[in-house]
Amino acid sequence: MTTTVAIIGCGLIGRAWTIVFARAGCPVRLWDAVPEVLEGLPAALRAMCEEAGEDPAILERVSVHQTMADALDGAGWVQENGPEKLDVKRAIYAELDRLAAPGTILASSSSALVSSQFGEGLAGRSRMMVAHPVNPPHVIPVVELCPSLDTAPEVMDRAEALMMQVRQVPVRMTGEIDGFVLNRLQAVLLAESLRLVAEGIVTPEGVDDTLRHGLARRWVLLGALATINLNAPGGVADYLDRYGPTMARLSDDAARGEAFTPQVAATLAAALPEPSRVPELSAKRDRDLTALAHFLKTRS
Amino acid sequence: MTTTVAIIGCGLIGRAWTIVFARAGCPVRLWDAVPEVLEGLPAALRAMCEEAGEDPAILERVSVHQTMADALDGAGWVQENGPEKLDVKRAIYAELDRLAAPGTILASSSSALVSSQFGEGLAGRSRMMVAHPVNPPHVIPVVELCPSLDTAPEVMDRAEALMMQVRQVPVRMTGEIDGFVLNRLQAVLLAESLRLVAEGIVTPEGVDDTLRHGLARRWVLLGALATINLNAPGGVADYLDRYGPTMARLSDDAARGEAFTPQVAATLAAALPEPSRVPELSAKRDRDLTALAHFLKTRS
Repeated sequence: MTTTVAIIGCGLIGRAWTIVFARAGCPVRLWDAVPEVLEGLPAALRAMCEEAGEDPAILERVSVHQTMADALDGAGWVQENGPEKLDVKRAIYAELDRLAAPGTILASSSSALVSSQFGEGLAGRSRMMVAHPVNPPHVIPVVELCPSLDTAPEVMDRAEALMMQVRQVPVRMTGEIDGFVLNRLQAVLLAESLRLVAEGIVTPEGVDDTLRHGLARRWVLLGALATINLNAPGGVADYLDRYGPTMARLSDDAARGEAFTPQVAATLAAALPEPSRVPELSAKRDRDLTALAHFLKTRS
Repeated sequence: MTTTVAIIGCGLIGRAWTIVFARAGCPVRLWDAVPEVLEGLPAALRAMCEEAGEDPAILERVSVHQTMADALDGAGWVQENGPEKLDVKRAIYAELDRLAAPGTILASSSSALVSSQFGEGLAGRSRMMVAHPVNPPHVIPVVELCPSLDTAPEVMDRAEALMMQVRQVPVRMTGEIDGFVLNRLQAVLLAESLRLVAEGIVTPEGVDDTLRHGLARRWVLLGALATINLNAPGGVADYLDRYGPTMARLSDDAARGEAFTPQVAATLAAALPEPSRVPELSAKRDRDLTALAHFLKTRS
């Protein structure tokens, strides 16, 4: 059965989620606290569809609502994309919990807050969780599903099923962890990259080339663990037996938080395209991500 | 002018290098210390070309030689792919330095040893360096160029130019560092991945999905630094100002060498395809990498 989705908060991420759900056939009901955002939605969504090569006819399933209560009417899944401020989120979830029908799942796009924080003390906290997308979710499929201790296992099962149904790739965590998985992996790689640049071992372009034309080619096809499973004749156990001590030594010796300095930020800013080009380069990135998604489908 | 290349050591990496140089038009002269390896080379190279979709006619530029001295005749570049044992490498470089014409660059594919070690005390150590490929180099273009303090800057310039000429992507380091760039980045990401799996936060498949369908999609297009340059309106400096403290905290809290345990190796071995499938899956990986390289060319 098709799930009706309410999008609460219609900035960039809320609009990208709208496309994800609508193109998979879900009725999508939109609400934002800011009236000007609501007014601009039809045009913004049409532009986003066009940019992403999505059929604008999918927007026939999308409706814009003037109140949160109206947007929640009939929704089985709420995707909340409010500001990353705990007091704001708490107020939103108190309201959502009061207004949403029993059984409606309340999922947050938060990358930093967890549902034990914003759901604390609320009657319906067992139906709350995080469904953290990568920006923008209509061109990058992974969604991190993070429960609190209070989240019902059945809610996680339904979340996973819905994400697969709308053709995203759910990654299910067993509990709350700061940064979830994606940003933890990004953080350690960034720390070491920044250190190598700061010490002048390699240029920022050299770091990026090492990923673009090396490591990330294997990772985008297989991931990091399936990659090392093929890098020794006896598979991953053989790999870790042969190279584990080297990898352990390199990790012990790696940079941590101290690598994030204003000096290296200035070095990177001087080496990378200037901020005025961010919109143009982001649009190209999204077009390339869409094409990459199509390519990867042909190989799987 | 076309550079003649001598491949010293013709295992899997030496053969892949042969294809890289030959398809770019370089005469390639092969030698290996093991006579049976030499005998099997023509058939092995034809099979490798076929598997990689390379025109076998490129092998007309390849010749097999019975002595190191013969293989070095006329070579401007030596790509050495011997065992990763310091005493063996030292003996090889003493011989290469004695036999190769002045001006011939002696580059090692080593992933672990550096030229200050294997070139120590040799008269020609200023022409020695590491040119570390990712296996297999005919389908993954990045090559890490690592000098010792003795390596002449002009040798590095010529190395970089040759790698570009043969359509690889050189990443030039300014000095020796354990693990170079690629394995340092791989090590920190693996350590944190292993920790998350060992603690049961996420499955091995979940870690790989996070990369395949998330992080690595951006990294394979842009690299990690150009990625964050687009993740804040004001570019990389704005990103590090907003998210640097979070990323620093996540790195401080990340796993290191202690994550490489026999227990997690067993967990991964149970979750990943079994060792008997390594050859079949490696062949598929290489076909996919070749297709990915073509795809990425169309987007750049």
